[in-house]
Amino acid sequence: MNLTHIEHIGIAVKSLETSIPYYEQVLGLTCYNIEEVADQKVKTAFFKVGQTKIELLEPTSEESTIAKFIEKRGEGVHHIAYAVGNIEGALAEAEMKGVQLIDKTPRGGAEGLTIAFLHPKFTGGVLTELCEDKN
Amino acid sequence: MNLTHIEHIGIAVKSLETSIPYYEQVLGLTCYNIEEVADQKVKTAFFKVGQTKIELLEPTSEESTIAKFIEKRGEGVHHIAYAVGNIEGALAEAEMKGVQLIDKTPRGGAEGLTIAFLHPKFTGGVLTELCEDKN
Repeated sequence: MNLTHIEHIGIAVKSLETSIPYYEQVLGLTCYNIEEVADQKVKTAFFKVGQTKIELLEPTSEESTIAKFIEKRGEGVHHIAYAVGNIEGALAEAEMKGVQLIDKTPRGGAEGLTIAFLHPKFTGGVLTELCEDKN
Repeated sequence: MNLTHIEHIGIAVKSLETSIPYYEQVLGLTCYNIEEVADQKVKTAFFKVGQTKIELLEPTSEESTIAKFIEKRGEGVHHIAYAVGNIEGALAEAEMKGVQLIDKTPRGGAEGLTIAFLHPKFTGGVLTELCEDKN
């Protein structure tokens, strides 16, 4: 698997409105995009730090996995996303090496990326996303 | 605060020996350094992905904060570390803006960096480290 960089870090928050000021006013980052991902039942806010984005995730429904994560563990880091050049090849390789895939087939994610998740039971407790920018 | 990139992501693991093979054999990264940080009661293993390091943290004592983290939440992401150009200035700015500092004065961390932690109650649940490379 050829990971080029950390594409983003997903952070579960109760409210974008409450959380964005910390990233902007304390850390000095700029929120350049807010996007709703309807099928994930989240509203996302993006900041860039070097090669990597911070993706804040606010649940838009109590059924959202992010709402359940916050209820169980509180706000905090939800997942790490690595950029790969060939997501289909990377998924096949991960599966061949014994990692259970949450997404057997890549799907569309925020910011026009093609994404897939690996199961955290097979990645040392870290929910792990692979992303390819096919555009 | 002028953050240049994500310096590393700290991940709590029960055992480096068990966890390193996933990062090397599945993700294809290379463990280039293993270092014990005695005053933190951890043994660390480092991998590089683009600008950012993955830092695995294995507790060397039950008194380690990493051991307590794993006991409470299981293995997973422990902290995010941002690289800054002037850590003293960044800490003063964070404190002025109402963030409680865990380290009021920067101290030595792994890999020769000068580091300080911000309290997660003031950073949206994410334990946050600032790092400056003074070398």
